[in-house]
Parts: sequence; structure tokens; C-alpha cells
Amino acid sequence: MFEIDIYRNRRKALKNKKLKGIALLPGNVESPMNCLDNTYHFRQDSTFLYFFGLDFPGLTGIIDFDNGKEYLFGNDVEIEDIIWMGPQVSLNENGQKVGIENTAPLSKLYDFINQAIKQGRKIHYTPPYRGENKLFLEKLLGISAIRIDEYASVELIKAIVDLRSIKEQVEIDEIEKACLTGYEMHVTAMKMAQPGIWEQKITGIIEGIANSGGGMVSFPVILTQNGETLHNHSHNNYLEEGKLMLTDAGAESSLHYASDFTRTVPVGGKFTQKQREIYEIVLAANNKARELTKPGVTYLSVHLAVAEVIASGLKELGLMKGDIKEAVKNGAHAIFFPHGLGHMMGLDVHDMEDLGQIYVGYDDETRPVDQFGTGYLRLGRKLQSGFVITNEPGIYFIPALIDKWQKEKINADFINFEKANEYRDFGGIRLEDDLLVTKEGSRILGKRVPIEPDEIESIVS
Amino acid sequence: MFEIDIYRNRRKALKNKKLKGIALLPGNVESPMNCLDNTYHFRQDSTFLYFFGLDFPGLTGIIDFDNGKEYLFGNDVEIEDIIWMGPQVSLNENGQKVGIENTAPLSKLYDFINQAIKQGRKIHYTPPYRGENKLFLEKLLGISAIRIDEYASVELIKAIVDLRSIKEQVEIDEIEKACLTGYEMHVTAMKMAQPGIWEQKITGIIEGIANSGGGMVSFPVILTQNGETLHNHSHNNYLEEGKLMLTDAGAESSLHYASDFTRTVPVGGKFTQKQREIYEIVLAANNKARELTKPGVTYLSVHLAVAEVIASGLKELGLMKGDIKEAVKNGAHAIFFPHGLGHMMGLDVHDMEDLGQIYVGYDDETRPVDQFGTGYLRLGRKLQSGFVITNEPGIYFIPALIDKWQKEKINADFINFEKANEYRDFGGIRLEDDLLVTKEGSRILGKRVPIEPDEIESIVS
Ligand SMILES: [Mn+2]
Ligand SMILES: [Mn+2]
Repeated sequence: MFEIDIYRNRRKALKNKKLKGIALLPGNVESPMNCLDNTYHFRQDSTFLYFFGLDFPGLTGIIDFDNGKEYLFGNDVEIEDIIWMGPQVSLNENGQKVGIENTAPLSKLYDFINQAIKQGRKIHYTPPYRGENKLFLEKLLGISAIRIDEYASVELIKAIVDLRSIKEQVEIDEIEKACLTGYEMHVTAMKMAQPGIWEQKITGIIEGIANSGGGMVSFPVILTQNGETLHNHSHNNYLEEGKLMLTDAGAESSLHYASDFTRTVPVGGKFTQKQREIYEIVLAANNKARELTKPGVTYLSVHLAVAEVIASGLKELGLMKGDIKEAVKNGAHAIFFPHGLGHMMGLDVHDMEDLGQIYVGYDDETRPVDQFGTGYLRLGRKLQSGFVITNEPGIYFIPALIDKWQKEKINADFINFEKANEYRDFGGIRLEDDLLVTKEGSRILGKRVPIEPDEIESIVS
Repeated sequence: MFEIDIYRNRRKALKNKKLKGIALLPGNVESPMNCLDNTYHFRQDSTFLYFFGLDFPGLTGIIDFDNGKEYLFGNDVEIEDIIWMGPQVSLNENGQKVGIENTAPLSKLYDFINQAIKQGRKIHYTPPYRGENKLFLEKLLGISAIRIDEYASVELIKAIVDLRSIKEQVEIDEIEKACLTGYEMHVTAMKMAQPGIWEQKITGIIEGIANSGGGMVSFPVILTQNGETLHNHSHNNYLEEGKLMLTDAGAESSLHYASDFTRTVPVGGKFTQKQREIYEIVLAANNKARELTKPGVTYLSVHLAVAEVIASGLKELGLMKGDIKEAVKNGAHAIFFPHGLGHMMGLDVHDMEDLGQIYVGYDDETRPVDQFGTGYLRLGRKLQSGFVITNEPGIYFIPALIDKWQKEKINADFINFEKANEYRDFGGIRLEDDLLVTKEGSRILGKRVPIEPDEIESIVS
């Protein structure tokens, strides 16, 4: 937990947003695995953590915008349970730790909300993403769980996004801790990238490193020799010489701040010439993105500049052709770089994704682009000092996508399909760092995971 | 996945139970961590796995008892998604793998259930334990998610418990695999049990071993130097010389069968005399339970026999007094051994806990005992060949419990409170093996995790 004033100040800042009514901020409950009492690692809701800091299940926070009062609802452990659970801190003591004076049992929350409803006060909440919290809000508010999202508060969402987008120093410090664990995970994976090793074996070991760090993985590990399959959470292959192992993985710090890195290494430790050529383009793209990242530029513009770096590089290899600016304008690069350059990162790996990508990544000035590829960019808006973002360009050879575009002659002026087909077995390369937008530009968070191809070769071998 | 006939035969056996109507068997969907798309490791529902074997989200199985037909509902991946997800196996092909001919999109399930409701047919389902499945059943059946448990089918529960209680050879083989991973976890933890090591560090590493094995942990690891706190999932202490580290942990095989072992070792590798004396009693209790375990005896009787072993041992040390049979009859042992001897194990670590402990652990002949301690026994009924159960006696010194009983003079004729208070800092010892009930008796599953105190000392040091 951070110091008490951190949480006080955050709630104060939220109150300064001048909303009317009350904010209803439920924390998470335990998440059942295969029965009610056999649960996954508890993960507190990030917005609850941000404002209330308490990392255990069954709590709800209330912020009353009209009179400034703050409440914490939850149940104390019964005396009988102390026999099983050991000495427990009371709800009231927990409230004190984060500067909340008013604490009460959960049953009182129902009374509180009922009264607010009777008084016709506006009750703001964010969209619940777990079934348990949907049902909890149904019980509290009398709105069907199935339709609960429709009544989520855009005002509250925008206010929270405003605050959580700019990272405080204590948050940056936490992210750096998560980055150190991420570093260990990646270097361990690199060392294990030998022919004959089961992908799941490496995956499990690096998940263990994340857990050992006091947090857990910040998202399900992607570790595969089929890096071209972007939504790939299978780890069932045995690594083969000549393939590339793509690892996209990160950890949480003990306070649940994320890291998120991707590295791609040659199985067995030696890049082929083809692999190294593509690798150098992705590395140049990654470096270019970092150089361009600074306050005042939109990440959309950085994304497009990176697309040009990729397209130029691929043109030199004969995979693309024609005018590069035109190619990128037409989205031709997206056959090889079909995803966005990056996303916000903080208490969530895709920070605030539960609040809605449109509010997190775009604003009135910068709107999402409706084009294959760039349309998947999660963060497009103007960067500000204090943003933490990922920088993750990639080049992939996706057989189904090459076949589709070739058949439908999509962007045929810019793509050498014959050449592309020579790369059908290539896989994919992605290189991802985490960046802090500083006053002047940007810097890499954590110790940069080895990325130079020669260094990679020396670690894997 | 097992061979096709395994699943066919299980469904056939369920149909032979002569229920009327249809069984509605939803699999699990993804479980959100901190937003809808950032999910925990997928864990399929165990009953769905048992009858349908398919280990991915979004499926529902139907067994029609009236005409014998079987259906699998789920959605195929859209063509567009194949670009991101790689080549996919169709629902129909997946159905074939487990012997289901009739497959259809999820939307057709709504029609199917609507028709069944109109026809007034009985729709059997088991109690859902995740919010998502509660909401799914609400949508399907028109019963409020909040009240959905009330209409769960006891007939179906009993039929499933009947089948799943007796393990097939292929299931025993899977449990043995889970046991091998559990063995690695425990021996690794033992080797790390040195003063100054953070509990979470060891916890993370052994979780990684579970994940590397292709499954995951079968339940959240308990690893603590405060073994007397039975419901302890905190791993925040640094191990201290002179303490005991209690580790209760197991893995799942890749087909999700569980193992569940507990070992208790001296931090740094040398038992004190006090520790070894208590340890020897728990070890004798564990061995006694295994000797007594055989078809035809109730596990309640084994639990009580073990309670006598513990009480006698503690009497020899001066911690208990009076007539041992009387002491156990009065539940006096429960101050030191307050939990049950064990539980069923299979596709769940507490097998079928979601179906209701009363149906899994008891029957008309053997009813639960309403006494502190023995009342917590999860499995009391008569053992049958093919049961897989845990054997986990323990002795604990729980300050809050000692204080309560001493103050209220509970079982004061049998307990030497003065002596018990000398053990307030002792912690607790539990020793747990997994047993298969055989035709003649029982055998330990997997390679027995080191348990002899001398062996333990040599591994830790
Ligand atoms: Mn990322
Ligand atoms: Mn157990």
C-alpha cells in the first residue's frame, strides 16, 4: 500500500471533477476456479485499488460528490473465523490506513444505496466485467445484471481516465519493479529457448518467476514459435531449430502495477539471414517510436511513422513496393504489421481497458481510424508527460492474411505477394518496451531487456 | 483428452440412471481478471470435462434422457478470426472427438431450451459457481441468477456423484501424473526452506512447476510458517530458524486431475525435540489411516481412529489426559486436530465440491456429525474400491482456540491447558498423502513425498 495521502489526494482529485451524486466503486470478490471455494489468485479491481488501496475481497467504496464524504463498506471477520484465519485487522483499521473514516458492514450499503435511489440521486459506476459484480450491482441497484452496462456512467469513466492516465512518481516506481521481474522472466525464457523444449515448460517457469516477485503475471503469457498467430495462448509445441520463439509476457508488482515486454529469439541461438533482416527492421521501428515519443505528439502519428519504417524496410527486402507514404496511407503495411503500436499501461496491462478503449485511447481531437491495422491501435491521442505506454511494433507473415489479400488483390500495388509467400513459414517478430513519456521525450522503464541481435544470440546459446 | 469411448460410456452410464427430461451441462467461459479480455488461466468445468472432455470455453452439452440424444452447442470461430487465431478445429470436428454427432451454434441452444420449457420437460442442472454461468442460466431458463441454485437438480447431482466417485483406470493414471508434479513441487519447496527466504518466493516457484507440468495448481498454495492458521493464504513472512514450514500444495495434470499433498519441515533443516515429538504422532496418525482404509469401512470411523492415535500421543506428551476413548467421544482432540481426515479427490481437489459436500461425502447410512472438529469431515461415508481420497491428519496449536476452550472450560477433563500454552508458538504440522482405495485396502498414489523425519532433515539441509 502507498502512503495514506496518495489515496486521499486521488479521491480529492476525483471530487474536484465536479460530478453530482455518488460514485459506487465495488472492489472484486474471489473468482471461483472449479467451485465456489477453490479460487484463482485474488485480483482486486484496479479502480478500487487506485482510490482505496485495499487488496482484499468484499469491499465497496463510496464517494459522495455532493457532500464530499467517503465510505468503505465491508464485513469484519467473525470472531469464530479468527480461529481459522488468525488475528485479523478490522475494517475500521483498514479504512484508517487509506484515510477513510466512515466504515460500515456491507448490509448498510444496501440501506445507503436505497436511500440514494429514493432521493433520486445519480449513482455513478463503471462497467462491471465479472459476473459476480454484475449480480452485486443488480442486487444493489435493481437493474438487471444483463443490462447493467448500459447505465454505466460515462462522466465517471472520463473523470477516472483523466486521473489514472497521468502516472504519479510512486506509480512509476512500482512499474519499474514490475519491469525488473519482467526482465527476469524474459532472460530466463531466452536461456531456455532450445530445440526440443516444450513451450509450456518455459511458460510455467516464467509464470513462477512472476508469482515469486509478489504479484502475478500481468496477463496470460504468450510464448510460441508461431508468433504470426497474434491471439495465441497455446503453448503446446516443442521448439524447433530454425524457428523464432516470440515471448510476450510481463509481471505485476506486489501493488499490481504491470510490465509488458515482447522479445523474439531464434530457437537454439542463431538467427538465419532472413530472420536477422526482418529483426533489424522491427528493431529500427521500435527505436524510431521511442525517439518520436514526446508530449504533444499523437501516438497515432507515431504509429504511422513506424508503419513507414516497416514498409521501407520491407521494400528494401522486396516484400513491398511503390511509394511508401502512399502504401501506408492505404494501409498496405498492415498485412505485415496488422496491430497497433501500443497501449497505456499502469494498474492494468491494457490500462483502464474495462472503462472502454475509446475513452482511454482517444479524445475529441484524435478519433479512431477506420482502417484494417491502424483501426486496432488502442492509444491514438496526444501524449502527455506522465503517460506510461508500450512500444511494440512487429512484422508477421500470416498465411491466411496473405492468401486473403492476394486473392482479393488488396493493396496489390504495394505488396509483392510472390515474395511474401516465400516467408509463409517465417512466423513473426515483435519487440516491445515500456516507455514513460517525460517532459522532453521518453525513456524506457526498467532495465531494457536484451534486444540487440548479437546480444540475443549470446544469451540463447 | 481420453479416447472417445471413455466419454461415450460415461454419458451412457448417466443415461442408465433413469432420469426424466434433459441434463443441461454448461462448460465454463473465460474468467476475467481485471477486465473482460484479461483473463485467468481457463479452467473448464469438471462435470463438463467428465462427460464431454473438451477443454475450451463457450460450450454447452445436453443429454436428453427421454430419447437418449446428445448435443453439443457452441460457436465456431469466424473466418475473420482465423487470421488472428490460426487454423481452427470446427465445433463439429470437436464433437466427433468425444462421440457427439449433434452440434449446433449457441443460438440454437436457446431454441432447444425454450421448446423444452414449453413442453414442460424437466431441465436438470447442477449449481453454478461462477457469476457468468449464473447469468447464462438466467438467460436460458428465465430463472433469476440470484435464485438459480434453488432449482438445481438433486437427482442429477446424485447421479453424477455416483459416477464420478469411482475412478476409472485412466483417471487414476492422470492422478498419478498430477502426483509426480506435486512431488517435484514439494521437494523443491523443502530444499528452499531456509531462514530468511520469503514464503512468496517459494510459493511462486512451486506454482511455476505446476504450470510447467501442463496443468496448473489444483488449489491456491498454502505455504506458511504459521501452519496453525488453517485458512492461510498469506505468504508474506520471511522464514525463521526454529519455525516449521507447512506446505499444502498440488498440481493438476494436463487433463485437470488433481494431486494434493501436505508436508511440514523444519526451517533450516533440523527438527527441535518438541517438533519431532509432535511430528512422529502426526506421522503415526497418517500411517494408521492408510492401514485402516479399505472398502466397506466408513471414513468417519477412520477419522475417529486417527483422532485416538493423536489423543494418545498427546497424552504421552502430557498435553491431554483421561480416558482416550472418552476424550475422542467428547471431541476433545479437536482442539489440536480441528479438521477432517480427508476428502475425495479427482477432477477437483475437493472432488465435486460444487455439487454439494453432503452428497459427495455422506449418504443415508452415514450422516454428518454435529460436533466441533469431526463436523468438518468432508468425507464420512463407506469407502469403495476406486475412491481416491486424501489422508491428512494434523496437530496444531491455535492460540485463539486454546484461549477460548481454557476460558470456557471446554473439555477441561481431557486437556492440559497449562502444557498446551507452552506450545503457543509451535505452529502446526500436517502430513497429507493421496490414497486409492483398492479391492483389499489402499495404496499411496504417486511416489510418496519424503515424510520420514530423518529424510526430511537431509533434504532441507
Ligand atoms: Mn503490450
Ligand atoms: Mn487436502
